[in-house]
Amino acid sequence: MTHKIAILGASGYTGAELIRLIATHPDLDIAALGANAKAGLSMASVFPHLRHLDLPDLVTADEIDFSQIDLCFCALPHKTSQEVISALPRDLKIVDLSADFRLRDPEAYRTWYGNEHAAVEMQKEAVYGLTEFYRDQIRDARLVAGTGCNAATGQYALRPLIAGGVIGLDDIILDLKCAVSGAGRSLKENLLHAELSEGYHAYAVGGTHRHLGEFDQEFSAIAGRDVTIQFTPHLIPANRGILATAYVSGEPHAVHGTLSTAYADEPFLEVLPFGETPSTHHVRGSNFCHIGVTGDRIRDRAIVVTALDNLCKGSSGQAVQNANLMLGIEETAGLMLAPCFP
Amino acid sequence: MTHKIAILGASGYTGAELIRLIATHPDLDIAALGANAKAGLSMASVFPHLRHLDLPDLVTADEIDFSQIDLCFCALPHKTSQEVISALPRDLKIVDLSADFRLRDPEAYRTWYGNEHAAVEMQKEAVYGLTEFYRDQIRDARLVAGTGCNAATGQYALRPLIAGGVIGLDDIILDLKCAVSGAGRSLKENLLHAELSEGYHAYAVGGTHRHLGEFDQEFSAIAGRDVTIQFTPHLIPANRGILATAYVSGEPHAVHGTLSTAYADEPFLEVLPFGETPSTHHVRGSNFCHIGVTGDRIRDRAIVVTALDNLCKGSSGQAVQNANLMLGIEETAGLMLAPCFP
Amino acid sequence: MTHKIAILGASGYTGAELIRLIATHPDLDIAALGANAKAGLSMASVFPHLRHLDLPDLVTADEIDFSQIDLCFCALPHKTSQEVISALPRDLKIVDLSADFRLRDPEAYRTWYGNEHAAVEMQKEAVYGLTEFYRDQIRDARLVAGTGCNAATGQYALRPLIAGGVIGLDDIILDLKCAVSGAGRSLKENLLHAELSEGYHAYAVGGTHRHLGEFDQEFSAIAGRDVTIQFTPHLIPANRGILATAYVSGEPHAVHGTLSTAYADEPFLEVLPFGETPSTHHVRGSNFCHIGVTGDRIRDRAIVVTALDNLCKGSSGQAVQNANLMLGIEETAGLMLAPCFP
Amino acid sequence: MTHKIAILGASGYTGAELIRLIATHPDLDIAALGANAKAGLSMASVFPHLRHLDLPDLVTADEIDFSQIDLCFCALPHKTSQEVISALPRDLKIVDLSADFRLRDPEAYRTWYGNEHAAVEMQKEAVYGLTEFYRDQIRDARLVAGTGCNAATGQYALRPLIAGGVIGLDDIILDLKCAVSGAGRSLKENLLHAELSEGYHAYAVGGTHRHLGEFDQEFSAIAGRDVTIQFTPHLIPANRGILATAYVSGEPHAVHGTLSTAYADEPFLEVLPFGETPSTHHVRGSNFCHIGVTGDRIRDRAIVVTALDNLCKGSSGQAVQNANLMLGIEETAGLMLAPCFP
Repeated sequence: MTHKIAILGASGYTGAELIRLIATHPDLDIAALGANAKAGLSMASVFPHLRHLDLPDLVTADEIDFSQIDLCFCALPHKTSQEVISALPRDLKIVDLSADFRLRDPEAYRTWYGNEHAAVEMQKEAVYGLTEFYRDQIRDARLVAGTGCNAATGQYALRPLIAGGVIGLDDIILDLKCAVSGAGRSLKENLLHAELSEGYHAYAVGGTHRHLGEFDQEFSAIAGRDVTIQFTPHLIPANRGILATAYVSGEPHAVHGTLSTAYADEPFLEVLPFGETPSTHHVRGSNFCHIGVTGDRIRDRAIVVTALDNLCKGSSGQAVQNANLMLGIEETAGLMLAPCFP
Repeated sequence: MTHKIAILGASGYTGAELIRLIATHPDLDIAALGANAKAGLSMASVFPHLRHLDLPDLVTADEIDFSQIDLCFCALPHKTSQEVISALPRDLKIVDLSADFRLRDPEAYRTWYGNEHAAVEMQKEAVYGLTEFYRDQIRDARLVAGTGCNAATGQYALRPLIAGGVIGLDDIILDLKCAVSGAGRSLKENLLHAELSEGYHAYAVGGTHRHLGEFDQEFSAIAGRDVTIQFTPHLIPANRGILATAYVSGEPHAVHGTLSTAYADEPFLEVLPFGETPSTHHVRGSNFCHIGVTGDRIRDRAIVVTALDNLCKGSSGQAVQNANLMLGIEETAGLMLAPCFP
Repeated sequence: MTHKIAILGASGYTGAELIRLIATHPDLDIAALGANAKAGLSMASVFPHLRHLDLPDLVTADEIDFSQIDLCFCALPHKTSQEVISALPRDLKIVDLSADFRLRDPEAYRTWYGNEHAAVEMQKEAVYGLTEFYRDQIRDARLVAGTGCNAATGQYALRPLIAGGVIGLDDIILDLKCAVSGAGRSLKENLLHAELSEGYHAYAVGGTHRHLGEFDQEFSAIAGRDVTIQFTPHLIPANRGILATAYVSGEPHAVHGTLSTAYADEPFLEVLPFGETPSTHHVRGSNFCHIGVTGDRIRDRAIVVTALDNLCKGSSGQAVQNANLMLGIEETAGLMLAPCFP
Repeated sequence: MTHKIAILGASGYTGAELIRLIATHPDLDIAALGANAKAGLSMASVFPHLRHLDLPDLVTADEIDFSQIDLCFCALPHKTSQEVISALPRDLKIVDLSADFRLRDPEAYRTWYGNEHAAVEMQKEAVYGLTEFYRDQIRDARLVAGTGCNAATGQYALRPLIAGGVIGLDDIILDLKCAVSGAGRSLKENLLHAELSEGYHAYAVGGTHRHLGEFDQEFSAIAGRDVTIQFTPHLIPANRGILATAYVSGEPHAVHGTLSTAYADEPFLEVLPFGETPSTHHVRGSNFCHIGVTGDRIRDRAIVVTALDNLCKGSSGQAVQNANLMLGIEETAGLMLAPCFP
């Protein structure tokens, strides 16, 4: 059975990635594409790589008849997403890719995003969208809050280790290297090819990146105490990919064993043999996540390196995986595309 | 019904691309992977991006039981391919991705490749693999010779124009811009990132590129007279893509109309609206080919710009498309993957 | 003796490149930097790579005391440049990097740039800045009009050939591959890393690129008749560089000999041995231009491939070279920086 | 006065970088270029970007008359360098760019490089080449051992902090992002453009990178006790640049103040205002090093991010700076080239 899908925010990169995945998904059918600023345009003019598809033209959210829609993806900026979702039918299944429903505590939301939460009631029914750890709740959810792409990457490295008590909680450092599509299709000087090529650098330094809100919420919940990590992202001259290097205290083989066991049955999470480390190129364009563990010459120090595609497993792929669960489809449907290498 | 497939030369880029495509193909199953120099290794160690797949280990060609194989892809270097294919069962369906069976005239083969053709008899049964123009013969073929990636690109631009008599035949210039994966996984100085990034240049200049053999053969056959084009390829700092700019004499709208008509029913060939031109990024990772036509300020001059992915539509995607025909499968099966952008 | 220099438009890429070159120039001293939109800022905040230099802060053009200035570089957008230069002292030496004074015919200016020329009188005293061909006039000039970067590249390939009568004039095709910094520091979608990396394409197709105005003016003047070339630029995923491939009719060794003779004494123009072709990487960051000539398998067809750095020899390096002449300094002063490879 | 220079290992990237710098150096003159495997070739054929220079052809080391040479740069692989230098005249001034004389303890050398030190006596006269910290000894040295490029970067971040006692010594983590030219002009699969572009990853993980030998030696000497840091390098798809992110315990403003004071008079080391962080693009092609310090949301944690050009300040620029001191020339001679951005 085919399910009818709407995508709001279809003119951004995560919107385009959703369409790319749904294009070969056996059970989903795109019924409406919303993009207020580009309403009236064809997708072929906004994203020429999708011109072979028979897609509806872009419309405003108001123009969509949601009674015909089985599930709606919202790929809008945060704050806008809250407002738009508040106006949608209350029984519509929604996967939100923004930051608006990730943080359960409205105080935390205000702290990290700077504005009051505009849909506190709706927040209560939202399920955090890290599929492998919230699978059952997602299956039953009406509203799923997709995770931050950096937040997903760091959690794949660290959640089982925190839960298993195999690493120290007070000296976790996450050094993350992120490709440029994570910043979206926004016109900023530092995203220009002329500036970024050959020009890698740290950003959001000093523990200021918003995805820390997710790390704090999730890690503290798992540990049953406050866990405060250091997290510094770096912008890398590449289009897709996140590589997260986690420095932790713990016995390296115990770390590797814990992750291997935790993810043994996961279709998309691959723990590499001990001592091997992943490359972003090897997951590019796919929903797979590769995790490598090594020791250090310093006893009881372990390094966990995690690679995924920020647009796919870090965002739109995760969203489709969650939608599959919400619609009762095979969880991996449409998501087994092999990475595009080289 | 699932067909059992072998791939010889599985440790190169076109081999990996075949596996990527077959990974989500509904009707093909990989039964054997040959790679003499890397026999004994797992695919995950040679191409870590394929580690999620349950693939057979690499073996030598000798170790494969071809009686269990429905179709064999040969992704070997030219000359080697002739020798290996000569030793395969005479009733085995084969799609050869090398240059060895592209040229019908053994003299032409010797001229362009420098060695005697070692399988002249077998050449006679080979069908040239440009799907859209040899579809019926491919359906019935035992041995299909995949085209050169540059040769495919140029022919998509020019064949209907030559056949339709809408362009002059004596002043065709093809300026081609090719990404680096076209050179394969070979260790050469000019393929190093440090040399190629920021370093684009012409190569095989002076009408010496081997794919000219294919252009001569095909264009002369269509025209019923000798057609000798100028063709200069350039190496571009990108991984995938061919962009071919053809300069021809002819009325631009007639040129556009002829191409639009010729490809109206083709599932993978997209002629853009008059005046638009394609980008390699918009076909990346896919089997699609975008073709744009513009005029010039000089009357009766037209420019045809063609973009495709050299590893996919230019090589392994074409091979799967041909295999689909040879096996009686839906021609587009496994090939509708949307381009991976950005 | 040190000459005092002002730069208007110092916040763009060509402004930054002027400062880079002057930083190690023995005879030039930067006395004022103008950038209206960023007045008040330090150069270190606008271009952190220049933070080691002791530079004046950015000011508006109005704030500069031009009586203390020996020569002014104008690196402003066209149209703005005319207005600003009209208001400068009439005895101030000026090197303009914009398009505003390149075309001697105000009609041609209106045709290509779409606005009336606002300083027709001043146009009459402007000298076209292609140093090697206007050297004597530049030495005596008050106002020099820097050439277009593409226009310079094509002229280095073709001027001596047209002047020498060794090529046909009616079938010249120039296929140009340009790096992204040629578009300046402008915020446009197609200049984003995420769009451009892996995404090369033609632009300004159909004989519409404004630098054609320069080609027409110069080539027709040399030939003593109208010369109308075909010129198609392509945007390449690299930061610096222009590679121009010229297809001409003519005996290849005569072509090579003519260029070799013409440039034998030129300090920055290097004609490669016959049959070799240049790479943009080999001139990157320098004022050098490499030119290669090959024949084709078609008799009496020659290919001339020219590489230079668009920001340096194509723009700011040319500007300094002209300023050196105007100020009576050694022509090569400050410009012998070796290319930065890899 | 001009000093006569020889370069051994002139066919590698650091050799080419030495020539690039000396090309505009006022006091150095290249008298001989050694490259055993490419002896007999011109530099223009090995490095076409140097074709404008009037350079001697490549010769074997044996062919060079060192009695005419004032200083010799050795840009050879480690182990080879020891052998070659042992055979050179004992009064010849030498700047070695290899790892062979960096470690004062032959045991440490064997541990990190796997072979016995073949010139233990000569090791005793070698001075470690980190200019800013060994300036006086370098001035008087006959043999200077250039540092590792990663080792230099990390030491610029950490030496004053360890010496000043402002950071903890037991939890220093250095996460380093290195461009590909650091691996030299070697033909390895992971250095190919097709593999590296979009493919960043960690390497030499687990505390196995050889530059740790230098960190251990230097930091322990400064601290007067063993200092053992964690150091993980990552390969980034760029040609030039090292970005080192150091995570330390210490009061951030004290960290910033200590570095600012230490480097206040250094011509090439720029400490950015507190809270700013550097980009590799802003030092590209230059001898400058930018250092930024930020705090973290966690009290008494500081992050020091350091950027330099691995081929220049990390290797050949450092070598020229040291040679200047050894020859009694102005230390900054030939090294004030501004970074090449974009």
